[in-house]
Amino acid sequence: MSLQAALDALGDPIRRRIVRELAQVPDWTRPCGTFNHLPVSKSTLSHHFSVLRNVGLLEQRDEGARRLNRLRRAEFDDRFPGLLTLVFAEPQAADS
Amino acid sequence: MSLQAALDALGDPIRRRIVRELAQVPDWTRPCGTFNHLPVSKSTLSHHFSVLRNVGLLEQRDEGARRLNRLRRAEFDDRFPGLLTLVFAEPQAADS
Repeated sequence: MSLQAALDALGDPIRRRIVRELAQVPDWTRPCGTFNHLPVSKSTLSHHFSVLRNVGLLEQRDEGARRLNRLRRAEFDDRFPGLLTLVFAEPQAADS
Repeated sequence: MSLQAALDALGDPIRRRIVRELAQVPDWTRPCGTFNHLPVSKSTLSHHFSVLRNVGLLEQRDEGARRLNRLRRAEFDDRFPGLLTLVFAEPQAADS
């Protein structure tokens, strides 16, 4: 995974918000369907999840009709030290 | 300066390359005119310098016909710890 891909993935404020929200809950507890409050269409949201998955920021598994998420925090931190810390420290108002 | 602006500025490979090249020389020794080897037009290069300046990554001053640069490394490191380190660690082949 390249720095370019990581910067591209985290360059979007909605994707950073997804990452921050996932960081606040235990692994595998938050389904994709619970991100409907974000101000984007369902297909855009699906695209954001796909980008985050492709860049190695999250892992997903299906449980019945729900697609659960795990933030690959430690793995991403190992590869790009400090980058997620900056995302977590970002003022939330910048999101909306 | 927002994280969004920092990620936008460093999201471009040419801008990361300018930052890396400036990190390798003493402050105020490298004029803008010495970046002609980069594979972009003169006006695009000028835009890249402007973006880097606006985001607080570099400072410029004119000396005669030359515009000299200083990377604001410590200042940027204070604001976004770890981000420049990732840029410096990026494999150079990713630039070209």
